Amino acid sequence: MSAASARTNLVIDRLVVIGVGLIGGSFALALRGAGAVKRVTGVGRTRKNLQAALDRGVLDEAADDAAEAVRDADLVLIATPVGQMPEVMAQIAPALSERAVITDGGSTKQDVIAYARRFLPAHFERFVPAHPIAGTEKSGATAAFAELYRDRNVILAPQPETGKWALEVVRRAWEACGARIVELDAARHDAIFAAVSHLPHVVAFALLSMLAKRDDAATLLGFSGGGLRDTVRIAGSSPEMWRDICVGNREALLAVLDDYVEELELARAALENADGTELEAMFDRARTARRRWLLKEQV
Amino acid sequence: MSAASARTNLVIDRLVVIGVGLIGGSFALALRGAGAVKRVTGVGRTRKNLQAALDRGVLDEAADDAAEAVRDADLVLIATPVGQMPEVMAQIAPALSERAVITDGGSTKQDVIAYARRFLPAHFERFVPAHPIAGTEKSGATAAFAELYRDRNVILAPQPETGKWALEVVRRAWEACGARIVELDAARHDAIFAAVSHLPHVVAFALLSMLAKRDDAATLLGFSGGGLRDTVRIAGSSPEMWRDICVGNREALLAVLDDYVEELELARAALENADGTELEAMFDRARTARRRWLLKEQV
Repeated sequence: MSAASARTNLVIDRLVVIGVGLIGGSFALALRGAGAVKRVTGVGRTRKNLQAALDRGVLDEAADDAAEAVRDADLVLIATPVGQMPEVMAQIAPALSERAVITDGGSTKQDVIAYARRFLPAHFERFVPAHPIAGTEKSGATAAFAELYRDRNVILAPQPETGKWALEVVRRAWEACGARIVELDAARHDAIFAAVSHLPHVVAFALLSMLAKRDDAATLLGFSGGGLRDTVRIAGSSPEMWRDICVGNREALLAVLDDYVEELELARAALENADGTELEAMFDRARTARRRWLLKEQV
Repeated sequence: MSAASARTNLVIDRLVVIGVGLIGGSFALALRGAGAVKRVTGVGRTRKNLQAALDRGVLDEAADDAAEAVRDADLVLIATPVGQMPEVMAQIAPALSERAVITDGGSTKQDVIAYARRFLPAHFERFVPAHPIAGTEKSGATAAFAELYRDRNVILAPQPETGKWALEVVRRAWEACGARIVELDAARHDAIFAAVSHLPHVVAFALLSMLAKRDDAATLLGFSGGGLRDTVRIAGSSPEMWRDICVGNREALLAVLDDYVEELELARAALENADGTELEAMFDRARTARRRWLLKEQV
């Protein structure tokens, strides 16, 4: 890497993206757009998706073998579903050079850090746990776009062993994508995102799954309006990716899921008693919180 | 009323809208835009909201007294929260003429029909139960806009006593707003909308209410992304309106709420057992249903 890009002072000679989907593909596109990378190699499971990434100019070259691909890498982004990361790490560990900086895009951090400690022991000081707070319900290289990270938060969860240089490389790469960096303790990260991201996905998936089980599901959905559509938008997300996130962060997720079911039971009791006052207080608490939150976002 | 508007063959001499919010205000604006109404009178609880409606050209005149306002009405739309409808009906019953057609915009139909049978007995054959499937999370006259009903469904739930003329007037008025008419049995209506509208509102209100109760709510929401924002968009809706809908339709709502909690319990069990297969099957069922549903909507 050399100091060249005026905006970021960072040019990555060789970036390897393992898992060229929405997250990995958009990272590559954003860095290319910023002139912060010279060559991008993508590693993926399906030829079709890699070809789409090549066709869209996300990658310079595609590879099937992760170990082979990372041999000359300066920066490696592991952007597969979290459940595949142990295997990916084990594959690349023997091939990584001593200068390679490794980072990830996983939505959970404690489990990914544990995997890296175990499967990348010789490289752990150059491993920077990261989570970009961006995404859509779409998956795959065709969903990637360069602006995905513009003005979005990227959480970094450096460990005591994490080297300053590695941290700086990852920070600058994300900044070159237009993102803001926030450092968080990994356990705190997992508790926060269990509440504001992982639980909402379970809420949406479960709602639509329940409706889909009914014999009259097609009729029901035909009568629905914009309310249901927005509420379950994220139920269009990758089942595999979210399976891994939910299982990976299940302790924190179970805690907030229990809080949520408890809140639904309060609503249930109010309905049974036709207690409009209790119900309105709950609805009003939610609306007030939403107003404050949206006002802050506009600032 | 006379046959004049080319598009609808309907011109309402005097429309009275009781409750000039998003639903009532948009109905007035759409009919005015279509040239299907000569004079619109609005009745409301707050002078501020009525003044906003006058300022925006939603109304020709505002009134405090519903009985006084409906004396010369050809068409009366009751668009208050459902819980206020019994009182409104009792107020206007003695003042309605024998030519007045009355309809409503309530999201529940069995309870509204029962109110009309009780409080509008002399006018029941001219009462047409209706539910426009349109709305946003915003409330009040300032949220109203003429295009709200364009290409949206309006459910009519005529009763055995409902007169043909009254039904035709209401049908044409909604068609003049750009809406499509669907007739449904009232009980079936309530079961369908419990599942695709009332439950999603409870789901969203409860999720945000639960988060809002936490000491770290502001921090949590500050880290959230577009997923949570869309999932709880409808938690911005009027607590009073939704309190009335939920209580009014509580039997059907309790049934689907129980189904939903059961689905969450399945997710909970899968999480506890780290059963990724079960979880992925649920997520996949939801995503598949969403895809089919959105494909149909595009047709």
